[in-house]
Amino acid sequence: MAAAEEHDVHLTGRRELQITGVKRVESFDVQAFELSTTAGNMRIAGQSLHMKQFDRQAGIVCIEGEIGAIVYDDGKPRGLMGRLLR
Amino acid sequence: MAAAEEHDVHLTGRRELQITGVKRVESFDVQAFELSTTAGNMRIAGQSLHMKQFDRQAGIVCIEGEIGAIVYDDGKPRGLMGRLLR
Repeated sequence: MAAAEEHDVHLTGRRELQITGVKRVESFDVQAFELSTTAGNMRIAGQSLHMKQFDRQAGIVCIEGEIGAIVYDDGKPRGLMGRLLR
Repeated sequence: MAAAEEHDVHLTGRRELQITGVKRVESFDVQAFELSTTAGNMRIAGQSLHMKQFDRQAGIVCIEGEIGAIVYDDGKPRGLMGRLLR
């Protein structure tokens, strides 16, 4: 299905995050979600996170909570983090 | 204007990022943007970033490039980074 291939992220008011193009949910807890998407692996960090929706066939994940960061892992996270923290 | 108050983030295919509720663009270069928004300070990191649109009155910023991370600075970035890197 074409809709499942496109990776989009929509964050509303830092409280609700909708992600498309999700292939797998690798792990999640109240502080972090790890997802495999059609555009790479991503990590969402925050507080009081919970999964509001997961439609595996459509590749859609909705997360509610206090979103703190959305980071893609391209195999060079430490350099990226260095820039984030400068 | 009500539209300027709401902070939303829409990322399309990791290549185009539209942000609303932007109060100020603090700095930007090809690797990082720092924005002040109605929901806090945020940093966007990536590669080959450039500003496609900046409508100060409407509070809208559009960034094109390879988006690597979107991080909010709530005064505890190092703890957050620790979770991101675990």
